[in-house]
Amino acid sequence: MVKLMHIVFATGNKHKVEEAQHILLKKDITLTQINCGYPEIQADELEEIAVYGAKWAAGYVKQPVIVDDSGIFIEALNGFPGPYSAYVQYTLGNKRILKLMENEKNRRAIVKSVICYCKPDEEPTTFPGLIKGTITHSERGTHGFGFDPIFKVNNKTLAEMTIEEKNTISHRTKALQKFAEWYNR
Amino acid sequence: MVKLMHIVFATGNKHKVEEAQHILLKKDITLTQINCGYPEIQADELEEIAVYGAKWAAGYVKQPVIVDDSGIFIEALNGFPGPYSAYVQYTLGNKRILKLMENEKNRRAIVKSVICYCKPDEEPTTFPGLIKGTITHSERGTHGFGFDPIFKVNNKTLAEMTIEEKNTISHRTKALQKFAEWYNR
Repeated sequence: MVKLMHIVFATGNKHKVEEAQHILLKKDITLTQINCGYPEIQADELEEIAVYGAKWAAGYVKQPVIVDDSGIFIEALNGFPGPYSAYVQYTLGNKRILKLMENEKNRRAIVKSVICYCKPDEEPTTFPGLIKGTITHSERGTHGFGFDPIFKVNNKTLAEMTIEEKNTISHRTKALQKFAEWYNR
Repeated sequence: MVKLMHIVFATGNKHKVEEAQHILLKKDITLTQINCGYPEIQADELEEIAVYGAKWAAGYVKQPVIVDDSGIFIEALNGFPGPYSAYVQYTLGNKRILKLMENEKNRRAIVKSVICYCKPDEEPTTFPGLIKGTITHSERGTHGFGFDPIFKVNNKTLAEMTIEEKNTISHRTKALQKFAEWYNR
């Protein structure tokens, strides 16, 4: 019989939990979601935001937690929208991002996720994962959410991939797998 | 002899201190700048960011403080860039904001500042100030900073006004004056 490990995932986002549970169960780790509303700070680096949140959440729930912070960084836009991807998605949306990119030849972008693990009163550990790709000229595909329809890898947008297909290459998968290997070490 | 009141302004921004000192001295309040690097959280409302920062800063410096949070809210862009105005200014800049606004007929925008006063272990008080204006079709003027060249009030951009002229109508002046009246009450 396999002994299952257990960890609290501090997040308000159900979809992140489902995605993470799917990935971590293969590594014998189960998750409980706690929506404790930890403060997300303003910072250019996802690591900084995840570390602040994980410390706060671990102190608040008084047990070890993981948090996730993710974003898309567009090279021609100096990394915009980066840590503010969720805010930019619901204010500007993909059509306006494409408008900003209209005359840009450099279409390189990175989608990144940082998982941060923290025990109460201990220093946190971060696990980054990323995918390199490019920004399309139009929205393509119906799967996923957020920037998925305008971010392509090998000529297929994340929204043109099934969940399983996306999960095999995703930034969050990479970050979670790094975390799981370290956690099970 | 007038008795001067004194308060700590928690900010990393020298220009904000100079501007505030100029306004508050007329109300017999002097300032000391402390750059304590309080955490700025991600939130849609400036009030929330200022309150979190002021509580933290008051606890950190162990005396009453004020903090300021400001931003420009463009109606056609669902309030973007709002609390992330500084980040958007150094990643996208004014030219790209104008590109986003190219075909927008609704050019209304609000420039807002929130001053938050907090004593250690007490609940903070906030003082908002705002200017209503519109987004121009091109950059105009050389004074000021940030979004000043693309935000106009009565057909003059903030960057076409002298500092004195801007100070008589500014969002930060309004917020600071409200604070001063309350502080001297």
